Amino acid sequence: MKNVYPFKVVWGDTDAAGIVFYPNFYRWMDQASHELLRAAGFPIAKLQDENIITPLLEAFCQFKSPLMYDDEVAVHSEVAEVHNKVFKIKHTFKKGDVIVAEGHEIRAWTSVAEERPKAVPVPENVKSVLLGE
Amino acid sequence: MKNVYPFKVVWGDTDAAGIVFYPNFYRWMDQASHELLRAAGFPIAKLQDENIITPLLEAFCQFKSPLMYDDEVAVHSEVAEVHNKVFKIKHTFKKGDVIVAEGHEIRAWTSVAEERPKAVPVPENVKSVLLGE
Amino acid sequence: MKNVYPFKVVWGDTDAAGIVFYPNFYRWMDQASHELLRAAGFPIAKLQDENIITPLLEAFCQFKSPLMYDDEVAVHSEVAEVHNKVFKIKHTFKKGDVIVAEGHEIRAWTSVAEERPKAVPVPENVKSVLLGE
Amino acid sequence: MKNVYPFKVVWGDTDAAGIVFYPNFYRWMDQASHELLRAAGFPIAKLQDENIITPLLEAFCQFKSPLMYDDEVAVHSEVAEVHNKVFKIKHTFKKGDVIVAEGHEIRAWTSVAEERPKAVPVPENVKSVLLGE
Repeated sequence: MKNVYPFKVVWGDTDAAGIVFYPNFYRWMDQASHELLRAAGFPIAKLQDENIITPLLEAFCQFKSPLMYDDEVAVHSEVAEVHNKVFKIKHTFKKGDVIVAEGHEIRAWTSVAEERPKAVPVPENVKSVLLGE
Repeated sequence: MKNVYPFKVVWGDTDAAGIVFYPNFYRWMDQASHELLRAAGFPIAKLQDENIITPLLEAFCQFKSPLMYDDEVAVHSEVAEVHNKVFKIKHTFKKGDVIVAEGHEIRAWTSVAEERPKAVPVPENVKSVLLGE
Repeated sequence: MKNVYPFKVVWGDTDAAGIVFYPNFYRWMDQASHELLRAAGFPIAKLQDENIITPLLEAFCQFKSPLMYDDEVAVHSEVAEVHNKVFKIKHTFKKGDVIVAEGHEIRAWTSVAEERPKAVPVPENVKSVLLGE
Repeated sequence: MKNVYPFKVVWGDTDAAGIVFYPNFYRWMDQASHELLRAAGFPIAKLQDENIITPLLEAFCQFKSPLMYDDEVAVHSEVAEVHNKVFKIKHTFKKGDVIVAEGHEIRAWTSVAEERPKAVPVPENVKSVLLGE
């Protein structure tokens, strides 16, 4: 499963160095994952109806080139791995043809049906969609 | 009721103009109100236990002098008015003795006991604490 | 001068009450003003080349209805007043046909050509564009 | 070099899941690094006077336990490695004695004395302070 999430850098994303404050890349990765899941047929609202959330286990990003105000960027997201209860999404930030950052998120398929959240196996139908083209 | 909420401007609060991005003043007003309510004996957690939230009806701020990275600032908050179902908190941002910004929030005393949130009268004991010294 | 700035509420805009954390409305007003100035032919980059910035003197917002994750919203912005050195932009947040928030910003036309920023008269050509249809 | 940066989770740090929105951990790592450099005698302001910035090459975080509104947390930061032009800072988030997250940043010692930023060797005196106790 792949998806492209486009966005534009706004003024509030920048810092006093005149470039994007780096934690914003994770905001964009988070939203890119939401859009990927939506494209896969599993929007957050639908998952919540089924008492499923997908909290982060880890997130990583390498910054290759700074982003500036008004830059138009696209996050290319792809499900890289689906294990029993966790899955990994790779995110590539592109400005035109230039890769400006690359990262990933590992998320847990988590049930909140009980009082305490608990990682549960990714359903087979979800797994096959996430791993499909 | 009065309270002082001190904070320091961090790097992420700034923008490409080298000064604080203005929406952050509202983040600080929000937290200053939380601290004021806490000081009054009504921390958010306690209000939530009683199915009470205090959503914003309006917020205003006048900016007199820009804030920079590392500035140490104190928000002086004061309950200015308590009406039947709403109350107004004034916030004064001071850097040392200099007033750098002044604003206010108007919030509604709101019950979430029913399915839909509904403004309800501020209880008399709360009113007297909020209006006291 | 009028402009419409559309956006979608993302996960990071929400708070533990399940609705949009209110300072985000000011982030959107700020960006809506940038887009209005861009539509008027005065994008930030061009103003900066001319050593002009438009810092906030005040910002106000009334919240009529909460916004939720995934809501599609449009900020309708309009230059309401242009005085000698300051101008006022009105912002109306609409979700479909429903007005969810209304606010304004007052900004100063400010030169950074000298060492200290200084409010200067809005040029006549800018004034006529901002006040035009 | 080690440092501890304490903070409290505020309302605006949370999201609709009722826990901290994960990109905030990177905001706190960023600030924890600033405080570490300050404690080492190299506050950002001083570095800027010497035309030095320390942009991110990569940042990573593992999330072990969610943070909630009002949680009191301390980021324990430590310089883990100093190479020729880059250095690595480890960050451990503790709530009481519990490790809630662990991450790192890799930053480049970068000169902005010329028109284009350029990674330069970490000065020996800086290196010895960063690697000292």
